[in-house]
Order: sequence, then structure tokens, then C-alpha cells
Amino acid sequence: MRRAIELAARGLGATSPNPVVGCVVLDPAGRPAGEGWHQRAGGPHAEVHALAAAGAAARGGTALVTLEPCDHTGRTGPCTRALIDAGVARVVYAVADPNGEAAGGAETLRAAGVEVEEGLLAAEAAAVNAPWLTSVRHGRPHVRWKYAATLDGRVAAADGTSRWITSSAARADVHRLRAASDAVLVGSGTARADDPHLAVRGVPAPRPPLRVVADTEAVAVRPGARVLDGAAPTLIAVADDVPAARTDRLRPGADVVRLPRAAAGRGLDIGALLAALYARDVRSVLLEGGPGLAGAFVAAGAVDEVVGYLAPALLGAGPHALADAGISTVAETLRLRVTDLVRVGPDVRITAVPESPGHPEASHAPQAPEEL
Amino acid sequence: MRRAIELAARGLGATSPNPVVGCVVLDPAGRPAGEGWHQRAGGPHAEVHALAAAGAAARGGTALVTLEPCDHTGRTGPCTRALIDAGVARVVYAVADPNGEAAGGAETLRAAGVEVEEGLLAAEAAAVNAPWLTSVRHGRPHVRWKYAATLDGRVAAADGTSRWITSSAARADVHRLRAASDAVLVGSGTARADDPHLAVRGVPAPRPPLRVVADTEAVAVRPGARVLDGAAPTLIAVADDVPAARTDRLRPGADVVRLPRAAAGRGLDIGALLAALYARDVRSVLLEGGPGLAGAFVAAGAVDEVVGYLAPALLGAGPHALADAGISTVAETLRLRVTDLVRVGPDVRITAVPESPGHPEASHAPQAPEEL
Ligand SMILES: NC(=O)c1ccc[n+]([C@@H]2O[C@H](COP(=O)([O-])OP(=O)(O)OC[C@H]3O[C@@H](n4cnc5c(N)ncnc54)[C@H](OP(=O)(O)O)[C@@H]3O)[C@@H](O)[C@H]2O)c1
Ligand SMILES: NC(=O)c1ccc[n+]([C@@H]2O[C@H](COP(=O)([O-])OP(=O)(O)OC[C@H]3O[C@@H](n4cnc5c(N)ncnc54)[C@H](OP(=O)(O)O)[C@@H]3O)[C@@H](O)[C@H]2O)c1
Repeated sequence: MRRAIELAARGLGATSPNPVVGCVVLDPAGRPAGEGWHQRAGGPHAEVHALAAAGAAARGGTALVTLEPCDHTGRTGPCTRALIDAGVARVVYAVADPNGEAAGGAETLRAAGVEVEEGLLAAEAAAVNAPWLTSVRHGRPHVRWKYAATLDGRVAAADGTSRWITSSAARADVHRLRAASDAVLVGSGTARADDPHLAVRGVPAPRPPLRVVADTEAVAVRPGARVLDGAAPTLIAVADDVPAARTDRLRPGADVVRLPRAAAGRGLDIGALLAALYARDVRSVLLEGGPGLAGAFVAAGAVDEVVGYLAPALLGAGPHALADAGISTVAETLRLRVTDLVRVGPDVRITAVPESPGHPEASHAPQAPEEL
Repeated sequence: MRRAIELAARGLGATSPNPVVGCVVLDPAGRPAGEGWHQRAGGPHAEVHALAAAGAAARGGTALVTLEPCDHTGRTGPCTRALIDAGVARVVYAVADPNGEAAGGAETLRAAGVEVEEGLLAAEAAAVNAPWLTSVRHGRPHVRWKYAATLDGRVAAADGTSRWITSSAARADVHRLRAASDAVLVGSGTARADDPHLAVRGVPAPRPPLRVVADTEAVAVRPGARVLDGAAPTLIAVADDVPAARTDRLRPGADVVRLPRAAAGRGLDIGALLAALYARDVRSVLLEGGPGLAGAFVAAGAVDEVVGYLAPALLGAGPHALADAGISTVAETLRLRVTDLVRVGPDVRITAVPESPGHPEASHAPQAPEEL
């Protein structure tokens, strides 16, 4: 199963709106006979690749799959059918399919006399599919917020300069995150300040992620902006009431989507923005800031993972990683759990996810009087 | 020598204005015969303890010492004399004594026919003595700045609440830092906001560190403040022109030192403050903020080590770890080098020291055009 999870990971960034899936087929003697992974949306599923590689050796054998085999006929036939036809005797999958439409695979297999087992390395398999599982659970894309800051939390200096706070190694690592995402998103403030390109460089990107700018008034992204250069598809999200003349000049470099404004506060409605991306088959978003847009995402409860690149450096002034997120007192702090901590070149990368409510350290409330 | 360094570390927080020193004496056959460390200022040096423990076995043996043996008669006799009298044949020390007055030990030993070797595990031995070596080099105490912040660099929430951002494990770790310091320092803003106690709790403190508040106008620390409770000595640094009535009410809970105001900007002159502490035998200061005072220390080039406790948490508003340090553009960023990165309970502790000028990554200047 560990091998199947490795195989699944190869599909990251290429399979949306489908999950990543890996599969290893063992022959009746338990020897690996074939492997495969879901390589791109619309292409054959992992099981089909693995069964093809195994050929006759699959008969009476075992299929190890990271996700419950699908039971519906989409752009490809159901995998349950393929497994049954190949004569597989036993199917072991890590994670049940939470997707109403495709689920029921285990039942169909059992009805056909196949032995079925669930839960092997479930946590690891769920982790590799976290974006997709989140998107199924919440009906919106998974959002990973990335920022690059100094130790004192500044993402730019007082004069607005921000190149470069982190090292080239950290910046290269960001391109890896981009390549694994379906879309890369920034706010209009970042578009205006940095004119970012938002394309993947230096790492293979199976499918260039959609570049998205939340530019409510359609004024920050101007003709000639680097996101309009055609290196990857681009979507400019604007308010539904901005004059057509402003958005017309963004084409053909970009597609434009008109969205309702936020009910309170400034900018676009975050839910509507995520829904628009979901409708475009985006299941994972890399939110690259800036602080204003990230604050709105945190306030909306729409950040599923935080990746912070911290440069061992001090500025003492300049904009912060995160602006107003509607939190005014320590008791309301958004608590996370560190899932990964590594050095990237001279910098430090901290990965964290929102803490599930009820975590013992969640409140940090002083149990007994404690002196500082 | 590794053992000698371990022994030296036991003296941290208790030996100022002296260094920490550890010593292991081997008999002529190379077997450990005695060990010792400098336990407190005014007490016997490490070599004396180790020689006493070794007794006659030291004759013809080797002494491993973390620092070059002293050659002067202070409150105790010179260690060179003790080593020569004990008949030690060979002395191996890690770090040369940079202290004019005490130096010359190696020469004296050689003149007496003792074989002398320098440099074994020098880096490790220098690290354990970093505060003292810094104080000798710069003629001021070593300053370690500690802060506790969220991932977005906030040290308190918008409403001023700051209890607790980090976990109990991180807070306990801070008490360990306090115990190893000669003084603990905060600014008047922190005194006003938090009324901190600044004493060591939960860990053995060989000598309770001096509690220091930089309270220019002598108004932030009021009668009844927790730093005046007598649990440890306290020093309130005030401007030399504040009325005596304001400072009189701080006694007997605290001692008061009058200092010149900063030439530019607000507050006290940082150099004068450090000199006043040095004059009180303080060789290591734990600067516990807040952001305003820390900014002034950074601007003065007087931060020798940074220890950041980062809670996996987001606030999006509130004061930052570091306020104005006179840095306005990315090229002027104070670059550090990470020396340690660990998890402390649910939190992350990053330790870093200012980067030596000329470090390859020091400027982060884009060598070639690079796109974001
Ligand atoms: N180091 C890093 O990781 C990093 C990353 C990105 C940016 N930065 C720095 O951050 C700075 C820019 O920060 P910023 O906060 O001004 O820019 P931002 O977060 O990129 O953009 C904020 C803007 O997005 C628009 N927006 C649209 N919908 C929104 C919503 N629902 N909530 C909030 N805003 C929404 C708003 O302007 P309109 O409504 O007018 O469109 C808002 O002012 C620059 O200095 C940049 O260099 C650093
Ligand atoms: N989480 C943490 O690690 C941590 C630690 C400490 C504080 N905090 C938080 O930080 C906040 C307080 O921050 P703060 O910046 O107001 O307080 P601060 O840094 O403790 O004190 C600043 C004050 O110190 C005085 N001062 C004396 N000499 C100075 C000099 N050379 N340069 C600058 N200031 C000098 C100045 O006031 P006068 O000249 O009027 O005396 C100045 O306003 C509180 O919310 C507190 O909870 C958090």
C-alpha cells in the first residue's frame, strides 16, 4: 500500500476534478505483478493501468488501491467491473470513497464474490488526497495558504520591496507547490505591488495551474501584466458590477469571471470565488496572498493548510503575513497543528493545519494562575 | 573534552563575570582521574576542582580544559600555578582566553615545561561560552532576544491580550533561558501591559537573574508591581532627569539606575543601559521584549542571538514581535543564520544569530532576472 500511495502522489496537480489514486496488483502468490496510477483527468484509472500491467497474473490475486474503487461509468468504465473481469480475488483499499456518485464500489465487489478490506494505511492515503477529500467534504476547493516572511512576520519591507525575503531554495520549493495545485491565487494588492507571473518554473508541471487574481474593480491587472502573457491560463475575478470596458481589455490574455461583492467588508465574496473555481474543476488552490486576501480567507474559515517559509531575518517594519481576519482577542486565535517542520536552504518551512476543535492545547487557557 | 564542555555548561547563569569552564584530568595512563567545573564567581576554578578530585593521579597526566587556564591572581590563585604544582605533564584546552588580564596561561605553562595544545572541539567550547566571549569581545553583555509569536508574527492580540499565545511547554522553556541568564530585561510598555514577574519558576536557578525594566520616565513600574516583590533583585533603569519622588517610591523593592536618554528617538541610550548592566557583573541578558525595546536593540546592533517561539496559530492583528528597527528596505534586512530548530510541545523554537557579513546568501540580491 505504501507503494500505491507513492504512485498516487505522482498524479498531484493533474487529476482534478478526480482524486489521485495509486494501485498495485499482486499475483496469487503475493508477488507484485503490476502497478499504475491515475495520471490525468479523463485518462484510465489507477486500477486499469495496474491490471493491464499485471495481465493474466491478476487472476486470483490481490489489488491494493489507495481509494475505494469507483462503481460508476464516467469518462471511463467502472473500476469494480475491471477488477471483477480480471478475476481479482481480493481488494484492499485505504480510504472509502466519500463521493456519493462514485461510491458503492466495495458493495459491488462483495456482491461479485470479491473479498474486500478497508483501512490499510488510511491516514497516509488520506494525506496524499487531502485536497480532493476536502473538496468533496466541503463542496469547495482545498485551500493551501503559502506565505514567505521574516521571523518577525513581515512579507515586505516598509518601502514595499519584497525581493527577496526568502532564499532561492525556498522560492524553488514554492514552484513545487504551484505545480501540485490546480490554481494559484493572489489579491489585487499583490498584483499591483509585484506584477507576479504566477507560472510554474523549474519543476515539471503536468498541467499548468490556472492563474487567478481577485481584482474586484478590474483595475489592478492592466494590459501588459505578466499574468496575461499566455504562459498558462488566467482568470481575473471581478465584481459583477464593473464596467465591461475594464474587463474587455484583459482579453484574450485572461478569462474573466464576475462575482458578487462580499456582504460585509471589502472585495469579492470568498464563497462565490471558490464556487467559481470549483465549477472550473479546480480542487486545490494555492493562495499566495497577500495579507489582505489571506485575512479574508481565514475569516471565512476557508484555509485548510498553511505553509510558511520563514527567513531568518528581521525587518521591524512592513506589511504582515496576515491582515485582519476578524480576530480581536487571544481566545479567538485560530489554532493550528504543525504537520511538518523542515529547513529549506537557509530558511525554515512550517506546515500546519487548523486544529480540530476540542484539541487539548486548543484553548491555551491558563488552568491555574501562572506567572510570567 | 566533550565531557569537559558538559561540565562547563553546569555553571551557566552562576559564574558571571567569569566564563563557564569545565575540566577533566586524566592520569598518565589516560584514565579519567578527576573532573570539575567553575561553579560560581569567587569560587575555585574548574582546574582546581578537577585537580583536587584527581589527587596524586594528576602527576604526569593530562588536563583537558574548555578555556585556556588563567595566569592571574584574582579572588583565587592562577590555575597555571595549580597545574604546574600538581605535576601535570600536558594541558589541552579548547579556546584561548581572549581576556587580556587573564591570558598568557599557555605561555606560562610552556615555560614550566608543560606540553600545551590548543583548539580541540573549539567550536563547541566557544558555543557554551558564547555569552562570556561576546561580552569580552564587545565590552558589553551578550544579548539574547526572546519572543513568543503566532505564525504571522503577532505577540499579542488586537485588544492587547497575550496570555497565552504559546504553550505551557514553550513557557517552561523560557524559564530555562532565564535561569541561564544574568539578567532579564523588558521595556516599560511590557511592564505596563503585562505586569510581568520576570522571576525563574520551575527550574533550578543557581543565582536568580537580575530583573530589569527600561522605564525612562519611571512611571510604568508602580508600587505594588510584581517585579518589586523581592523574589529576585530588580533594577529599574530611568532617565537621569526624572524627579527623585518618582524613583523613591520604587525602593526598597528595586534598585534604580539613572541613564542618559537616547540621542535620537525615544527612551534610554542602549549603550549606557548595557554598560550599567556590565558594571553590575551582568554578562548575559535575556531581552524579553517588547517589540519597541527589541527594535531599539536591533537598531543598535546589540542583539547577539534570537530565540523565537512560534505558536502554530494566526491572529491577523495585534502588535508585532519587532517594532521599528530603522530598516526600511529589503536590502537592509538584518540577516541571521538558523543555529537550532526544534519543536517545543505544539510550538516551534527557532534560534538564530546575526549572519557574519559576506555570507553568500547574505544579500539575497537577484543575480539574474527571476520571475515570481
Ligand atoms: N511574501 C509573501 O508571501 C507575499 C505574498 C503576496 C504578497 N506579498 C506582499 O503583500 C503586499 C500586498 O498586500 P495586500 O494585502 O495589499 O494585497 P492582497 O492581499 O494581494 O490584495 C488585497 C486586495 O484584494 C482585493 N480583494 C478581493 N476580494 C477580497 C476579499 N474578499 N477580501 C480582501 N481583499 C479582497 C481587495 O482589493 P480590491 O477589492 O480593490 O480588489 C484587497 O485590497 C505587497 O507588499 C506584496 O509584496 C507578500
Ligand atoms: N509575546 C512576547 O514575546 C511579548 C514579550 C513582551 C511584550 N509583549 C507584548 O508587547 C506589548 C508591549 O510592547 P511595547 O513595544 O509597547 O513595549 P516595550 O518594548 O516593552 O517597551 C517599549 C518602551 O520602552 C521604553 N524604552 C526605554 N528605552 C527605550 C529605547 N531605547 N528604545 C525603545 N523603547 C525604550 C519606551 O517607553 P518610555 O521611554 O516611555 O519608557 C518604549 O515605549 C504588550 O502587548 C506585551 O504583551 C509580548
